[in-house]
Amino acid sequence: MKAAVWYRARDVRVEDVPSAAPGPGEVAVTVAYCGICGSDLHEYADGPHAIPVGTPHPESGRAAPLTLGHEFSGTVAEVGPGVTGFSPGDRVAVEPHYRCGDCARCRAGEYNLCRHFGFAGLMGDGGLAERAVVPSYMLHRLPDGVSLDQAALFEPAAVALHSIRRSGLRDGESVAVVGLGPIGLLVVRLAARYGAGRIVASDPSGARRDLALRLGATEVVDAGALPAGEADVAFEAVGTEGTLRDCLGATRRGGRVVLVGLGGTFAFDAFALVNNEQSIIGTVGYRDVHPELIRLVAEEGMDFTPIVTSTVPLADVVRDGFETLLDRGSPQEEIKVLVRP
Amino acid sequence: MKAAVWYRARDVRVEDVPSAAPGPGEVAVTVAYCGICGSDLHEYADGPHAIPVGTPHPESGRAAPLTLGHEFSGTVAEVGPGVTGFSPGDRVAVEPHYRCGDCARCRAGEYNLCRHFGFAGLMGDGGLAERAVVPSYMLHRLPDGVSLDQAALFEPAAVALHSIRRSGLRDGESVAVVGLGPIGLLVVRLAARYGAGRIVASDPSGARRDLALRLGATEVVDAGALPAGEADVAFEAVGTEGTLRDCLGATRRGGRVVLVGLGGTFAFDAFALVNNEQSIIGTVGYRDVHPELIRLVAEEGMDFTPIVTSTVPLADVVRDGFETLLDRGSPQEEIKVLVRP
Repeated sequence: MKAAVWYRARDVRVEDVPSAAPGPGEVAVTVAYCGICGSDLHEYADGPHAIPVGTPHPESGRAAPLTLGHEFSGTVAEVGPGVTGFSPGDRVAVEPHYRCGDCARCRAGEYNLCRHFGFAGLMGDGGLAERAVVPSYMLHRLPDGVSLDQAALFEPAAVALHSIRRSGLRDGESVAVVGLGPIGLLVVRLAARYGAGRIVASDPSGARRDLALRLGATEVVDAGALPAGEADVAFEAVGTEGTLRDCLGATRRGGRVVLVGLGGTFAFDAFALVNNEQSIIGTVGYRDVHPELIRLVAEEGMDFTPIVTSTVPLADVVRDGFETLLDRGSPQEEIKVLVRP
Repeated sequence: MKAAVWYRARDVRVEDVPSAAPGPGEVAVTVAYCGICGSDLHEYADGPHAIPVGTPHPESGRAAPLTLGHEFSGTVAEVGPGVTGFSPGDRVAVEPHYRCGDCARCRAGEYNLCRHFGFAGLMGDGGLAERAVVPSYMLHRLPDGVSLDQAALFEPAAVALHSIRRSGLRDGESVAVVGLGPIGLLVVRLAARYGAGRIVASDPSGARRDLALRLGATEVVDAGALPAGEADVAFEAVGTEGTLRDCLGATRRGGRVVLVGLGGTFAFDAFALVNNEQSIIGTVGYRDVHPELIRLVAEEGMDFTPIVTSTVPLADVVRDGFETLLDRGSPQEEIKVLVRP
């Protein structure tokens, strides 16, 4: 079968790989759609960051070269020994967090913080392939009425929903969202659903600001132009020191800044943070959100697909996926690219 | 009457000042005890930091020179027009937060975040004096059995209890406390009361570590020697970049660091904060904690006085208070100095 295999930075090859049979507790999924995530781009541009090189990941047993892609949906092709609850033909979304099941965090139900933290598609083989073999605990069966392209967007939507839960968002609160990539846009969509009053979204791109308005933002502003001290909660979805500063400045006394974007070492004004009684809340991945996302689409008709700007075949993933997404000057500004293997 | 008046850094004068009558809504308190706080020391050493110079504070109407001291207790001497609920002779603790009463945060009950943030004794005249005139909303009447020296410690204890509430401490959680000044020691005391399991306290001073053990710490370690990644909650009670880093390192994945210490601009590893899903929670002052502190002492017999290392007369506050507390090489290591006007 064909798979997009990461060898090193700027070296992702769409090539033939053996089609593995599912082992005990595993399921083989015929991939329908797989989104390209910002972290895939980081791995492509200047990785490895999360991809294991040399030492295999303890849950996947895999190291580079490996198949990228952690935002995927598909149809069960084959179930391994001991798997119950899934049968060939089941339509599924994949929740790609590995979990050991017996560390302190897994036992506390916080499996996104497992000591063996990782994602299929970064720390093990993923969904940028015709077929993916994953542990059955990663699968969520889709009801009729939830399409496989929506389901491929559950992964970034899960990041957004988990970040909203981490924020403790209460009805009527005022929200700022800084950075309107897929995660920022999905935070806008879901914050509107979960009771936010005012939602001010900020990005240098006019196209992204327009999309934010369609998804539920009540106001949009250019980068750095948020009103000062007004938000109850600000979501930082870029991952830079400057945007963290913007978020703290946009947040009221006693407010919260949720740090979703992955950056490096940032300086912040700790004196002001204390005097303003603000918080900086980290959020990573998600837990226990996929059933709610399925319900939102199946029962409420929520639509995540407005963020999809292109759907490309697997063979073209490097040129029309990674390279186009990295090219800020490309004529069409891409937001979310889905790959259809 | 005598008062300790701040003129500028290194210039605090114990001098005669007029004894003001309480205005409408105000109460005059004969001061029994007034503690010296780290923020008083900062003002003495290299202020002004919080003390208004030139422009008067909007609630107090005062600017330097003004009377220091915000950790005080005493006896009501005289009530101003319109004050109900207090009579001469009432023993009281003072909760020195100013509040305007009609800003968004005051209306939300978060009066410690009032737009006119401030403390009597920093932004207005305080309790390092024979008598203090304060708004009646600052007073809490003391039941029999709560001594006036305990009551002078309610102010730092309130900072500690509010920081514990901000942490969301749950029964049995593991706590680290970095920095064993009065606030850190009171966090130890109160964390033990409010359900902490393990309490690891860290400070370079052996005397302070010993005191932490008396107050409820289950283990003590030297500065920088906290076990890595084990605490559910770490309290930073120093206010430096290094101790914030220590706290983040001591905290488990998903854990919280409560920033109590006042520092400057700090760098932190935002990539690790996100990947570890940690939070940095600022906390300032207190709200709605004094009734509980009174109850703890009156009904449970809690004793905050072990942190008091000296009680000095007002006339000697500069030499035996400020200068001794700033002198790290003094033979007796001072922790909390109470002044008895």
